Amino acid sequence: MPEKKYVYSFEEGKGVGKELLGGKGSNMADMVALGLPIPSGFTITTETCDIYYKNNKTYPQEVKDQIETQLQALEAKMGKKLGDANDPLLVSVRSGAAASLPGMMDTVLNLGLNDQSVLGLANKTGNERFARDSYRRFIQMFGDVVMEVPHHDFEVALQSVKDKKGVKLDTELETEDLKQVVQLYKEVVQKATGKLFPNTGREQLAMAIDAVFNSWNNERAIIYRKLNDIRGLLGTAVNVQSMVFGNMGETSGTGVCFTRNPSTGENKFYGEFLMNAQGEDVVAGIRTPAQIQTLSEVMPECYNELVRIYKMLEQHYKDMQDMEFTIQEAKLYILQTRSGKRTAAAAIKIAMDMLHEGLIDEKTAVLRVSPAQLDTLLHPQIDPAAKTTAELLTKGLPASPGAAVGQIVFRADTAHERKEQGKKVVLVRVETSPEDIQGMVASEGIVTARGGMTSHAAVVARGMGKCCVSGAGELVINETNKTITVKGKTFNEGDMITLDGSTGEVFAGALAVVDPELKGDFEELMNLADKYRRLRIRTNADTPRDAATAKKFWAEGIGLCRTEHMFFAEDRIKAMREMILAEDEEGRRKALAKILPYQKQDFYDIMKELEGMPVTIRFLDPPLHEFLPTEDKEIQVLATEMGVSVETLKNKIASLHEFNPMLGHRGCRLAITYPEIAEMQTEAVISAACELKKEGIDARPEIMIPLVGFQTELNFNTEIVRRVAKNIMDKYGIEVHYLLGTMIEVPRGAVTADEIAKTAEFFSFGTNDLTQMGLGFSRDDAGKFIKEYLAKNIFEKDPFQSIDETGVGGLVKIAVEKGRATRPDIKLGVCGEHGGDPMSIDFFHRAGLAYVSCSPFRVPIARLAAAHAALKNG
Amino acid sequence: MPEKKYVYSFEEGKGVGKELLGGKGSNMADMVALGLPIPSGFTITTETCDIYYKNNKTYPQEVKDQIETQLQALEAKMGKKLGDANDPLLVSVRSGAAASLPGMMDTVLNLGLNDQSVLGLANKTGNERFARDSYRRFIQMFGDVVMEVPHHDFEVALQSVKDKKGVKLDTELETEDLKQVVQLYKEVVQKATGKLFPNTGREQLAMAIDAVFNSWNNERAIIYRKLNDIRGLLGTAVNVQSMVFGNMGETSGTGVCFTRNPSTGENKFYGEFLMNAQGEDVVAGIRTPAQIQTLSEVMPECYNELVRIYKMLEQHYKDMQDMEFTIQEAKLYILQTRSGKRTAAAAIKIAMDMLHEGLIDEKTAVLRVSPAQLDTLLHPQIDPAAKTTAELLTKGLPASPGAAVGQIVFRADTAHERKEQGKKVVLVRVETSPEDIQGMVASEGIVTARGGMTSHAAVVARGMGKCCVSGAGELVINETNKTITVKGKTFNEGDMITLDGSTGEVFAGALAVVDPELKGDFEELMNLADKYRRLRIRTNADTPRDAATAKKFWAEGIGLCRTEHMFFAEDRIKAMREMILAEDEEGRRKALAKILPYQKQDFYDIMKELEGMPVTIRFLDPPLHEFLPTEDKEIQVLATEMGVSVETLKNKIASLHEFNPMLGHRGCRLAITYPEIAEMQTEAVISAACELKKEGIDARPEIMIPLVGFQTELNFNTEIVRRVAKNIMDKYGIEVHYLLGTMIEVPRGAVTADEIAKTAEFFSFGTNDLTQMGLGFSRDDAGKFIKEYLAKNIFEKDPFQSIDETGVGGLVKIAVEKGRATRPDIKLGVCGEHGGDPMSIDFFHRAGLAYVSCSPFRVPIARLAAAHAALKNG
Repeated sequence: MPEKKYVYSFEEGKGVGKELLGGKGSNMADMVALGLPIPSGFTITTETCDIYYKNNKTYPQEVKDQIETQLQALEAKMGKKLGDANDPLLVSVRSGAAASLPGMMDTVLNLGLNDQSVLGLANKTGNERFARDSYRRFIQMFGDVVMEVPHHDFEVALQSVKDKKGVKLDTELETEDLKQVVQLYKEVVQKATGKLFPNTGREQLAMAIDAVFNSWNNERAIIYRKLNDIRGLLGTAVNVQSMVFGNMGETSGTGVCFTRNPSTGENKFYGEFLMNAQGEDVVAGIRTPAQIQTLSEVMPECYNELVRIYKMLEQHYKDMQDMEFTIQEAKLYILQTRSGKRTAAAAIKIAMDMLHEGLIDEKTAVLRVSPAQLDTLLHPQIDPAAKTTAELLTKGLPASPGAAVGQIVFRADTAHERKEQGKKVVLVRVETSPEDIQGMVASEGIVTARGGMTSHAAVVARGMGKCCVSGAGELVINETNKTITVKGKTFNEGDMITLDGSTGEVFAGALAVVDPELKGDFEELMNLADKYRRLRIRTNADTPRDAATAKKFWAEGIGLCRTEHMFFAEDRIKAMREMILAEDEEGRRKALAKILPYQKQDFYDIMKELEGMPVTIRFLDPPLHEFLPTEDKEIQVLATEMGVSVETLKNKIASLHEFNPMLGHRGCRLAITYPEIAEMQTEAVISAACELKKEGIDARPEIMIPLVGFQTELNFNTEIVRRVAKNIMDKYGIEVHYLLGTMIEVPRGAVTADEIAKTAEFFSFGTNDLTQMGLGFSRDDAGKFIKEYLAKNIFEKDPFQSIDETGVGGLVKIAVEKGRATRPDIKLGVCGEHGGDPMSIDFFHRAGLAYVSCSPFRVPIARLAAAHAALKNG
Repeated sequence: MPEKKYVYSFEEGKGVGKELLGGKGSNMADMVALGLPIPSGFTITTETCDIYYKNNKTYPQEVKDQIETQLQALEAKMGKKLGDANDPLLVSVRSGAAASLPGMMDTVLNLGLNDQSVLGLANKTGNERFARDSYRRFIQMFGDVVMEVPHHDFEVALQSVKDKKGVKLDTELETEDLKQVVQLYKEVVQKATGKLFPNTGREQLAMAIDAVFNSWNNERAIIYRKLNDIRGLLGTAVNVQSMVFGNMGETSGTGVCFTRNPSTGENKFYGEFLMNAQGEDVVAGIRTPAQIQTLSEVMPECYNELVRIYKMLEQHYKDMQDMEFTIQEAKLYILQTRSGKRTAAAAIKIAMDMLHEGLIDEKTAVLRVSPAQLDTLLHPQIDPAAKTTAELLTKGLPASPGAAVGQIVFRADTAHERKEQGKKVVLVRVETSPEDIQGMVASEGIVTARGGMTSHAAVVARGMGKCCVSGAGELVINETNKTITVKGKTFNEGDMITLDGSTGEVFAGALAVVDPELKGDFEELMNLADKYRRLRIRTNADTPRDAATAKKFWAEGIGLCRTEHMFFAEDRIKAMREMILAEDEEGRRKALAKILPYQKQDFYDIMKELEGMPVTIRFLDPPLHEFLPTEDKEIQVLATEMGVSVETLKNKIASLHEFNPMLGHRGCRLAITYPEIAEMQTEAVISAACELKKEGIDARPEIMIPLVGFQTELNFNTEIVRRVAKNIMDKYGIEVHYLLGTMIEVPRGAVTADEIAKTAEFFSFGTNDLTQMGLGFSRDDAGKFIKEYLAKNIFEKDPFQSIDETGVGGLVKIAVEKGRATRPDIKLGVCGEHGGDPMSIDFFHRAGLAYVSCSPFRVPIARLAAAHAALKNG
């Protein structure tokens, strides 16, 4: 049996795939196969990482042997040896998993430098200062990343040398100073770790490989995977690649580029570069780089070669590429290519453009846009009118589009805290680093003083769909005093600012925002999605105005019209309270008679707006005490209005108090106690429908009884509805076809769906309550401990955001199966919050439902998600 | 095809069975077959009743034809004709369902009397007064029962005639007066109903049959069926039987008798009779009857015949019989026999006696005692010591055993109201009627001034297992003024009295009560039950004292030891509060360290008490706010104790407030937030077990993690327990075998039991919470609307009393199946309240659980119920 292969040279990697080689290693192999100029190297597989973790952070001898074999081959190929005193091989050691985790894991550059090989590097490059500087940077990076020496300790050592010499900048240090820094750095390492800095290249390499494997499970990487729902991977691969240097003088340089504009999607080569710099300098955003096009002036051959290559790569991968390159002494090397992160707008434009270009087919185009990402486009933008009079503070780079309005905060943890307090915040930083990631999540938007379009802040913000302005260099940010000074004005933490991530503008104060226009490419994408999806998309709408909005968003009906929201309106709540406080049925009927005309008019308007489409009307659901005041003052006013004593009213309110209102007297239980409520609601729905029919308008009401756990409960309600509906229709002499169904939101309802389906013509899954009861988590109370659950990895996701597929989804599946067994053509839908969540929509598609219903603004997301579900699951 | 048979003569009824003929009809057929003296007649099947209801209260012509055919045959056999002016046939029309519903449905006697046949009856009996009196009684009964004329209207008419004549008693009216009464009665009927009183026997019969069918669904009958959980019957049969008269003079009489004593079970003929009376006179309790044995003096032949018959019937049915008989002019007729209702004590004695007599086998003996009925025996009795100094008011008949202590109330509705207010009441009535049934349910016991051992009050109370004293004639009860006067003393509504239903004694005031002795027959029955049951019976016990009680009741271990109850003790709650109010983990650990020795000692004592038996210890479950005070005054005291400001404390309490605590931060969620709690509890359990082991005592702890919905939750807790337990065992150098499992009480836990069983070594179903969450019913809040659910037939039973087999039981079944799929030998039990409910136990047996756990006093009930379940389901 041949030995199992753990390490592949880039030449051997073709066709092995990114599951094993990771994205970076796989791309290297691809590029080598395409004949592109790639620094040679090899990849240690993700499987090795898995073995590493399973074997208590070690791997077997055969892996070590294979690494040594590949290393020797690399040395032979390059004609250089690791640690050589004359012409040393230097390598980079980089992570690279099957999914992209930008900046989350560790990288070591210039590995192989030691007291001997630094001489070789000096000798070979004829630049001892460069060699010494590379060496001290290597020790610092290796010490930090691999040996976990505090970054600060190196800074102190470096500062001491600069102070002694009386200089301010690193570049002012000379060769001898740098030798001294190296010496001090080694002492720093020894002091912090109790160990000598490793002196051989092979020792360094072994340690660096371990460090990369370890970084797979550092906190940032775990959080990033959780946020981006990246699961099921074996681990990271490790790429060992011979170094090329962009910092070897004025004919060297390094850059990052995209085959199309990642912000707008425009089909135009896009990127940035820095001459005489290493790649980390561009990404870290410490110097502000030049636009890629200017490279054609600086080094035209390299530029033309780069253009040839980017086109080849985009054709090859049939997707927009994000590339890293280095020019070493006028020779171009491609260091990396991968599908580029992009804004939602760019994703749509690129997908539609590539479709039109014939590069991809319709299905691929639809799958290219992430439904969740659309959210950024659906969110409001700054009102152009508001901009004309607004105080423009500065203009940075349009790093990630959208609008952000919030209080200034300067630290990630402050952002987090204030968000917890319900505040909207904008994170203001000189530059961001991976430690800021949670603060960025908590912010409406991010603005940085330094860094380009590919800086950390920009890349991460785009990935999150957050508004970001980067490189706003006019902002003088004092993170200690917590002030921003710009144009002679000073802003403090807590002051409001507004960002426009599409233009890079930063404004003082809170600007008005407006809804986006969803035309052109967006509309085309939606039409394609509609072509491939199977799920119908309805919306939740409680008022005639909501219904109009819903229609604008192409909703195919209303999946949830909550009648109680109608009761809360000022002109109706009085009658509602009168009903609740009535002593007997007669009193209740009198109060209900006042509500009837309002309800009827509402239903009339809604069904008229959605002519020919189903309108699901849920009967009264919340506990009655929700309609009563809680404040003493309000109680007094109400008591006077109702002509009762304050004490009587307070007693009544107290008698309605419940210990667990979520499990109390609500839903269909209300109509069981007070059948007259269901009678009034039926009359309102059916008479509205009759009047519309009389006018020739196709009204399609679906009456939905909430919180049903027992068929007998539904039967009781059904008897009322059928009886009253028949009377009304007889009165009008008009037949209205209406459905009568129920929510499935009580676990018992799911378990006994076969019985309930005998009566119900449709089920609408109320996954909010089904989650509350199925998991025993009150949504109002669980927030506190769900956070701990996420932190302690007990939950992967908040089950109120994405459906708990195993548990709650298990109940949904039981109900679908049992419901269909009784009534094969039963109509099945969802009207919980999950109806607008792409991951949940995927589940609902697989569960075989007919429609989902979500808030109007999420309808486009749901349409696209439904198409994804159909295309992914068939 | 032969015509379907709807009507059977008693001769034809042999072997047809009581499902179709009802209990009464079936017994008549049996008795005819046994050659007993039975008045001839026929039975209309229960199926006819079903058809009647399904056909809008009519039945087809073929039924009418069969009735006519049978009626003609009866006329031929008796040589009399219905309505005949010379020698008329008179019949009774009685209900009779497959299950006994004593007094709940309607009966008509003397049917066939009209203006002509009354002369025939007079002629034949030579007693015109008897005939006229029978006629007026018939009109009154028929008018009341069949034609729904208010009873009161007849009383007014009768009174007017008595007033005119100036007499007080009915018996003082003469023939002519009675003729006048008949005339007035007919006018009453016409006035109340607008119809003439039916004048032909056939017309009367048709109406009476409909009335009996209608009475199947009168309110009393529905309530009785619900209370006694009688379900699945087709309806009532109707028995038409020729009348015999116990009121034809001094050689006539009527009685009710039992083959054994229904109160004590003593194997001695038992019963009562009245000479010159109709059967209703005995049952209604208007005259106090004589003991059956005195019949041997009055009519020795009849008595001897009756003795011969009762012995034959008991041999035939192999059960104690409740018989009705009538003597018409010295000829004995048996009107009815059925298995007799009996007290729990009697049921046990009869079952054991019949077993010893060889009449029945062990299994039958076990099945003869209803587990629910045992409850009366397990309830306390009056303390004999208290009796010696108590004020004995009177002594009535010992109609139903047990003790009752409560406030005097005079009306059923008052009983009901006060019970609702949490008061204990004793219902005091001159006599009871079926209208009182709900008041009887609400009372601790019933005392009546009139009526015998077989009066309505006595029969119903025994059926309910309520204490009852009947025929306490010394009590002068004024229902209008609401007073009792006895021996010159007057008691008012609300005054306390005490009844001893085993002796018939009535005492003033509230007497002390004591636990019963459970020896002799009881113990024998229990041992038999143990022989046949498969389910193990554990008990819920929270303290060492509970554990001792539990052992006394033969519990086979503890299924639920709620550790929080330990925390509530005065000396511990302070440390508990300190822990809750601690600012950080260190503070919590300090407080927990104070609780540890208490917990350890408790566990030590409990496991020592139950040496060799499993002791399931549930880790902390309730939300922490339950341990904090709510009253301002207590808060002040606590703030002082804790050395914090009242405001700080109030803020902390407010921060712990939850909207739906049932779905909040409790159960295993506590240990996820505060792992140190689980650490302390593990240390307490395992170190107690180690110390016991060191002493050679076999401690068998089972650690139970509550409220688990996710395997990851259980894993988090398990990691803590396993780690701490190992440390403790290492410290002691002792290995304790302990199980680690979980409650299944969150619906998700049931649905994902396959995953949870990977970690859990046992499941204990917490059916209280599973009911709350599965049905979405908060137990604290649902009381109000569950009552309406029962009243409106949405629920057959309160799901918190007997498990909702379809819904909650469905979840249990899913969990059993999934749990076993993962871990075939997983230990399965129940620790909710349902563990002590016989119907639920039957389900748990069928679901294949290993044990149930219930409160100590219910252990014997559970043992017997488990045996029933095993015998009934195999």
